[in-house]
Amino acid sequence: MDYMFIAAIAGVLGLAFALFAVFYVLKQGEGTQRLKEISLAIKEGALAFLYREYQILAVFVVVVTVILAVIPDLGWQVAMAFLFGALCSMGAGYAGMNMAIRSNARTAAAAQKSLNQGLRVSFRAGAVMGMTVVGVGIIGLTVLYYAFHTLDPDEFVKIIPAYGFGASAVALFARVGGGIYTKAADTGADLVGKVEKNIPEDDPRNAAVIADFVGDNVGDVAGMGADLFESYVESIIATMALYTVAVPLLAKDNATAWLLPMMVAAGGIVASVLGALLVRVGEIPKMEALLAALRRGTFAASILTAVFAFLVVHFLAESLDPFWAVLAGLVAGVLIGESTNYFTSYAYGPTKSISQSSTSGTGANITTGFANGLLSILPPFIFVVAALLVANHFASFYGVAIAGIGMLSTLGITLATDAYGPVADNAGGIVEMSDLPHEIRERTDALDSLGNTTAATGKGFAIGSAALTALALLLSYTVAVHIVDVKAGTISLAADAVNKMSLLNGPMMGALFLGVMLPAIFCALTLTSVRKTSGLIVEEVRRQFREIIGLMEGTARPEYGRCVDICTKAALRQMIIPAMMAIVAPVLVGYILGKFALVGFLAGATASGFLLAVTMANAGGSWDNAKKYIEMGMFGGKGSDPHKAAVVGDTVGDPMKDTSGPSLNIMIKLMAVIALVLAPVITSWDGLIH
Amino acid sequence: MDYMFIAAIAGVLGLAFALFAVFYVLKQGEGTQRLKEISLAIKEGALAFLYREYQILAVFVVVVTVILAVIPDLGWQVAMAFLFGALCSMGAGYAGMNMAIRSNARTAAAAQKSLNQGLRVSFRAGAVMGMTVVGVGIIGLTVLYYAFHTLDPDEFVKIIPAYGFGASAVALFARVGGGIYTKAADTGADLVGKVEKNIPEDDPRNAAVIADFVGDNVGDVAGMGADLFESYVESIIATMALYTVAVPLLAKDNATAWLLPMMVAAGGIVASVLGALLVRVGEIPKMEALLAALRRGTFAASILTAVFAFLVVHFLAESLDPFWAVLAGLVAGVLIGESTNYFTSYAYGPTKSISQSSTSGTGANITTGFANGLLSILPPFIFVVAALLVANHFASFYGVAIAGIGMLSTLGITLATDAYGPVADNAGGIVEMSDLPHEIRERTDALDSLGNTTAATGKGFAIGSAALTALALLLSYTVAVHIVDVKAGTISLAADAVNKMSLLNGPMMGALFLGVMLPAIFCALTLTSVRKTSGLIVEEVRRQFREIIGLMEGTARPEYGRCVDICTKAALRQMIIPAMMAIVAPVLVGYILGKFALVGFLAGATASGFLLAVTMANAGGSWDNAKKYIEMGMFGGKGSDPHKAAVVGDTVGDPMKDTSGPSLNIMIKLMAVIALVLAPVITSWDGLIH
Repeated sequence: MDYMFIAAIAGVLGLAFALFAVFYVLKQGEGTQRLKEISLAIKEGALAFLYREYQILAVFVVVVTVILAVIPDLGWQVAMAFLFGALCSMGAGYAGMNMAIRSNARTAAAAQKSLNQGLRVSFRAGAVMGMTVVGVGIIGLTVLYYAFHTLDPDEFVKIIPAYGFGASAVALFARVGGGIYTKAADTGADLVGKVEKNIPEDDPRNAAVIADFVGDNVGDVAGMGADLFESYVESIIATMALYTVAVPLLAKDNATAWLLPMMVAAGGIVASVLGALLVRVGEIPKMEALLAALRRGTFAASILTAVFAFLVVHFLAESLDPFWAVLAGLVAGVLIGESTNYFTSYAYGPTKSISQSSTSGTGANITTGFANGLLSILPPFIFVVAALLVANHFASFYGVAIAGIGMLSTLGITLATDAYGPVADNAGGIVEMSDLPHEIRERTDALDSLGNTTAATGKGFAIGSAALTALALLLSYTVAVHIVDVKAGTISLAADAVNKMSLLNGPMMGALFLGVMLPAIFCALTLTSVRKTSGLIVEEVRRQFREIIGLMEGTARPEYGRCVDICTKAALRQMIIPAMMAIVAPVLVGYILGKFALVGFLAGATASGFLLAVTMANAGGSWDNAKKYIEMGMFGGKGSDPHKAAVVGDTVGDPMKDTSGPSLNIMIKLMAVIALVLAPVITSWDGLIH
Repeated sequence: MDYMFIAAIAGVLGLAFALFAVFYVLKQGEGTQRLKEISLAIKEGALAFLYREYQILAVFVVVVTVILAVIPDLGWQVAMAFLFGALCSMGAGYAGMNMAIRSNARTAAAAQKSLNQGLRVSFRAGAVMGMTVVGVGIIGLTVLYYAFHTLDPDEFVKIIPAYGFGASAVALFARVGGGIYTKAADTGADLVGKVEKNIPEDDPRNAAVIADFVGDNVGDVAGMGADLFESYVESIIATMALYTVAVPLLAKDNATAWLLPMMVAAGGIVASVLGALLVRVGEIPKMEALLAALRRGTFAASILTAVFAFLVVHFLAESLDPFWAVLAGLVAGVLIGESTNYFTSYAYGPTKSISQSSTSGTGANITTGFANGLLSILPPFIFVVAALLVANHFASFYGVAIAGIGMLSTLGITLATDAYGPVADNAGGIVEMSDLPHEIRERTDALDSLGNTTAATGKGFAIGSAALTALALLLSYTVAVHIVDVKAGTISLAADAVNKMSLLNGPMMGALFLGVMLPAIFCALTLTSVRKTSGLIVEEVRRQFREIIGLMEGTARPEYGRCVDICTKAALRQMIIPAMMAIVAPVLVGYILGKFALVGFLAGATASGFLLAVTMANAGGSWDNAKKYIEMGMFGGKGSDPHKAAVVGDTVGDPMKDTSGPSLNIMIKLMAVIALVLAPVITSWDGLIH
């Protein structure tokens, strides 16, 4: 009997939880007229951006669909899977962001009652994104399975990667476009507001403040959701594509090799829902209790996932080997999250030392933060390499791929805790703009601060899983283009690959270098995009302060909509070059240096992208929190020279941690999935240079 | 007949030119009493540092010598070669720096006569370093050749890499220790002087100013010299070690395979001497003329080198294939230098845009500079990969190695133009401290500015050649540990290497990731070292301003010696951890993951080290020049807010471009040469993880 429908049931469970959260949140009051007003402006801006983004995206998706359909080696089924993947990702992203923009004022209003109530509303808003992503992701894959699994197995695994490619395309727009938007608005607002005019963050006189709030939603919620949707489905797809490796390993048939990864993921969804139910605190909560509540939820989900995975493997496979691989990925994910927290939270030494160095000036703050970012890559690299070696040892390529699923299996709850952050952040900003009592702002600040911790953990997790997913896709690619032969589960190099897959082969080494190079170029482009876009915002905010009489005095209102509009247009225009580069590069390298060297290129890009992504995320996170630590009254507190230095550090870190770093996640996965989707074409590419 | 002695003759020619330059410079007057006084303080500080560094180095070298001697597979000859390499490098470094510290006051005095005279003295001082490095390097190799070439060829190529290892050890101390020293002193001086006290750079009231001048000599002169000495000899060694590949390719015997690389290098020395003779300008010179003079010299040397290499290959080999490899390296080196100039000189868009972005504040300056650094890696990567592919196409591993020689062959003159910079910089500082007429400072500023251009070019060149040298050493390593079999010039994977050398092998992929990771950790450590050391300097300078009555008013003198002393001790202590890491890492990875995976580790480290080194060097260089551009009166000029932002950028870039970036050159070569030297031991390491 075909048990695949169980995976869909788990997906439905996830969606049901999301729906419950939607109803819960929408039932809450939106608070005062002013809260509603601001929330409405944010909602309008965010939806305007999303619609415009989806318009361009639609054109892109249609063009790619047609191209895929007309390439003889691919065909309409591949094209349909791509289209379907894109639609699923857009749907999940839309749902998650739509919820987030309806929750900010409600969280602010709830915080008027109690901190606990504020946490409940914002966490459940985040849970909508988390559960929708995993639910839609796994249901979509189940649909694909039932649509195509009766085809020849090799045909089937040719089709499903396109679903991931569709998700990648959406993630590219959401992460890169959204990432540029969010940080251009943020730094633009800060540069004029905090630095030039000396007015507080989120001050209503700042024309870019609404654009900044919009950015939190389109970048941090929709972008993060699309990113992890992509990782989630692609890690499952890569595992399924490696079924020929799995069949002898599991001592089972194709169907089981496809079922196993889906059931591991399904177990993770159930575990996430159960974990999410544990996120509750008593009525007189402290910050520590809030954090403990979230951690209880995620840790419980991890342990349950391990148990479920054990059972799944026990019942579906002849040996426990794949379970060890899942466990390696799961543990690595948790540890990466913890290490990210260590390097970015002001509870620990590294971030404190950045705050402290600010007393020696801005330069010292920047250098210390950057060095911290570089140093912080040590644990994630060690953990990913350890997971890779363990998984590979137990279950070869299939192990590496399923370790990716292990890492991502608790995504339902980790993404919930992650998407909670921007909601709390928005809520805090709205309170600031609404002349509500100071104690309410203190409560939302507490929520926001908790959100920063979970965001850091989530970011580390997103990057680690992106690296592992990219590796899994890469391995699937080598099977798909027949670089390796799989016979009775044993993987050996194809005859013509023996010398060409050696790292000592000229094109392979050259491609490795080019792969290592590309993420840096991509970063440079995205950083420049943010700077250019924020430059436009700076000009606009300055113009409004100059031209709108009474604005600085608070007697007139700025034109928020203009900043939103400028940012939307510029962000989408500025993303074109980096996005095109990520799409064209693997095809070009594969064509010029050949299908073997493309492996070196992708491996180099994954490793270097991982390096830069972690560095940027953690440097940015620790600069941010180093500033917050000073604002708590350390080293002179707000307004002191160290504080000014720390504000600059935060400004530098912002585009790194929220645009360039996260965009790299997409880039490395996108390049690998393109190689996998185009495998039937690439398989005949011997390269022009030998 | 054995023609190797010709190489030594070329080396003697280089040394003769150096000696001529020494006599020329020492004949010049040292100027006023004040000039002599300051120069003496610098000299004392620099020599004190060098002696202390050499003391520690001596202990290190003796320990390593003994270790090498007692390892059964290596033996006393390897140990002697190591010791000899270390002594040669120390000698060349000592000679070059000794000349530099005797030339600063003389350059200042010469600039009182004319700009042209200033150029002549400082360029010839730099030429001492350039010509000594190549002269000593090639003579040392000739001595080794005559000492050991009658042994079994495999024994011979087991011994010579240790000469490179000796050079590496010295370079490690000179680059890392010297690099920490120079930037700790520089940023320490700036942080208190320029930023806190608002006194000009090089102001005599600043207690760290002499330490800063000392740093220029120990870091930029001695460090750069040792770095390039290492690259120079190691690229030749790697080529010689690949003689089994070369013999059938050249259709000649072993002796010719060893002679060819030495003769290419010898041709480069002759070309450099001839090129250096062309560096002269008319009596009424402009800046453009100065630059044109230097470029005429280096370009002429490049063309002559190509001609000589053609003749050498024509007479020594049966085919021109190795010549194309040499040419590929030579051209790549020139183009990398040019591209570095483009990304770091304020004559071009990138640096101008950093100056311009400073008008939006410090954060914008930092982000723009960093993005520029990342983007600037594109040309060096493309050129190195192109050289690699061309060289590999024509002459396989031997081609890649000899391409490294091609790139480094004009080192005599490129290093001369490079070492000229710090001399001019010192001269300018001394003039500033000596109350000489403003026009003299303008002349030394012009010389200094020219020095910045040549330093940027030189830095790019040092990094590119380090990457190529590391690759060449890596290839020699694979032959030495029998990962590849060389039969009749054809390279094929050894039977047990087929699967293990595949990039898809678990330990190989894991090692690649660890290799990519390590340079970032190394950077983090060196950046932190600079910050810690400069923190001590900041405290000391502040203390002196606080405690020495009349210091700020100029009626009392600071205690320069204390800063020199603090910096010396701290720099040498702070270098221990990063240095040990670079030495231990390859051994550990080789032992745990095996000799095959070590290739992935070294390749990953080379690529990632190259990425970070270029990024840091060029970001730092462009921040520096963006500041200078503003100081020329652009965007508000000196003292304006944009200028303040640009000063911070310069402070951030300083340790990147002068410590962390250059230290990476050493790291990647050192790790590769350690693998090569230990090859007889490593060859039996199968790794603990499979």
